[in-house]
Amino acid sequence: MKKRRIVSIAEFSIHPIGKGTSVSRYVKRALQAISKIEGLEYQVTPMATILEAQDVHTILKAVEASHSALRSMGAKRISSILRIDERVDKPRTMRDKTKSIEH
Amino acid sequence: MKKRRIVSIAEFSIHPIGKGTSVSRYVKRALQAISKIEGLEYQVTPMATILEAQDVHTILKAVEASHSALRSMGAKRISSILRIDERVDKPRTMRDKTKSIEH
Amino acid sequence: MKKRRIVSIAEFSIHPIGKGTSVSRYVKRALQAISKIEGLEYQVTPMATILEAQDVHTILKAVEASHSALRSMGAKRISSILRIDERVDKPRTMRDKTKSIEH
Amino acid sequence: MKKRRIVSIAEFSIHPIGKGTSVSRYVKRALQAISKIEGLEYQVTPMATILEAQDVHTILKAVEASHSALRSMGAKRISSILRIDERVDKPRTMRDKTKSIEH
Repeated sequence: MKKRRIVSIAEFSIHPIGKGTSVSRYVKRALQAISKIEGLEYQVTPMATILEAQDVHTILKAVEASHSALRSMGAKRISSILRIDERVDKPRTMRDKTKSIEH
Repeated sequence: MKKRRIVSIAEFSIHPIGKGTSVSRYVKRALQAISKIEGLEYQVTPMATILEAQDVHTILKAVEASHSALRSMGAKRISSILRIDERVDKPRTMRDKTKSIEH
Repeated sequence: MKKRRIVSIAEFSIHPIGKGTSVSRYVKRALQAISKIEGLEYQVTPMATILEAQDVHTILKAVEASHSALRSMGAKRISSILRIDERVDKPRTMRDKTKSIEH
Repeated sequence: MKKRRIVSIAEFSIHPIGKGTSVSRYVKRALQAISKIEGLEYQVTPMATILEAQDVHTILKAVEASHSALRSMGAKRISSILRIDERVDKPRTMRDKTKSIEH
């Protein structure tokens, strides 16, 4: 079996501004949208969602889908942040990244 | 004359990891790629590039084009960060944002 | 005259969550707090405030003072982001950084 | 037993620029420095370290200690990013944050 070549790991966080201090229902809806994107793995952390894909393009689909999800919920102002770590020299997964620190 | 309806302002920064401490030639090449995207205005600050467009999609094109530019220069690992401020309630430009703070 | 040795340039952005979509009066108050910190230069961009100081410690004072300013205005939840670019190999200012890209 | 009142959760990431594409030994050293800070809990994710403390001040100590750790390893240019989510209205932990999304 061929191992999928992972080149992009990213971290994404999104929230509406001006919709109260509790924003979890918006984050849930963004995650629903993200979960439908093909070729994208994700993992929720206390501060963000880790995204993993073969290319940057798939990562960016998650950003677009999340903004779209929040707009459709009536958000008037949306703040998001995306940090991409694209690695061309060697494929590795989110799990690999954590392991390289732990050991 | 109709004023263009601006809804998305973003801030983007990109650099290769492991290519020496001087990364300005990579940043220049990314800016060249960004400058070719239609419907996108940009402004360079000491820490990032401000991007302004009507929609999030155009902003994301800048991210994709920049990663692609650095890969084509031989970068093996690329770190980037994008922060989007999408505003649906009222159109405003980068200039408006700075003014609202100054006055 | 001795040139001040600048080693840290940073970019900082702060806003309350759940206080309406217009957050400029909070940002202004944070800037007032920042302006009182000795040894810190700053410059406002459409998306953030650029901070320049000799050491990381002075940069971090700006973060603490800004959170404190927003708490004192009644903000119940405060989101901020700080990106530091510390350079030990050669001193340079915010102005230098922009120039290295432009030329 | 009194539950500790947590008000600040943050996410921190640091790496040297120009020290090769593998930066894990630097990240490990930063984590060692972080682990010595009193009143600070931390958790490693594939893209960052989550920091949890009662106040912003303790969070900022982690940033300062990490920069200091990388400088002492010979890093000439250090890039870091810190995102703080300070919540005054109700205490919650990193675990709570993930749960509010999951359920």
